[in-house]
Amino acid sequence: MNSKALPRQINSVEVGVYECEIHLKFRLIEEKSLFADRDQLLQVLLEALVDGSDDFIETLQAAVKAHEITELKASPQMRRQLMRLRNSTENCQ
Amino acid sequence: MNSKALPRQINSVEVGVYECEIHLKFRLIEEKSLFADRDQLLQVLLEALVDGSDDFIETLQAAVKAHEITELKASPQMRRQLMRLRNSTENCQ
Repeated sequence: MNSKALPRQINSVEVGVYECEIHLKFRLIEEKSLFADRDQLLQVLLEALVDGSDDFIETLQAAVKAHEITELKASPQMRRQLMRLRNSTENCQ
Repeated sequence: MNSKALPRQINSVEVGVYECEIHLKFRLIEEKSLFADRDQLLQVLLEALVDGSDDFIETLQAAVKAHEITELKASPQMRRQLMRLRNSTENCQ
């Protein structure tokens, strides 16, 4: 009926809702043309941070926090996604 | 022999050094196990921000700044990289 006998593997993937904060300052070598579209600026910088080597990026300051919160605080879209994740877990039993 | 026959585009790629600041607050659905290694936390969050759909992430606050600075402020590693980039551009002309 419910999820008492969750499967071994899926069982080990436990998800939670986290409230996170990132504050970063850095210097970056980048193509000038990529800064023309200010709407894309955040995406350009995030991709540079994920892919960037020390030859292209120098971190000046980094503060990162994350803590788990009650899922009641999550958006309706995220709560639906959580339900989907749980249902798919139940269906795998 | 060398790169004289590289495509025209390379010539038009102008690069600069930018000083950037990102301040983000967001809620995120994520696997709990990924938060176990605090050293990897920034990388986990950045990858989630780059790849994440609205079903998994909800931005609460976002501030992004970027401005070009003199390359004299860049690290030696970055200045070497800039020279390499310029040399490869010159070889293409």
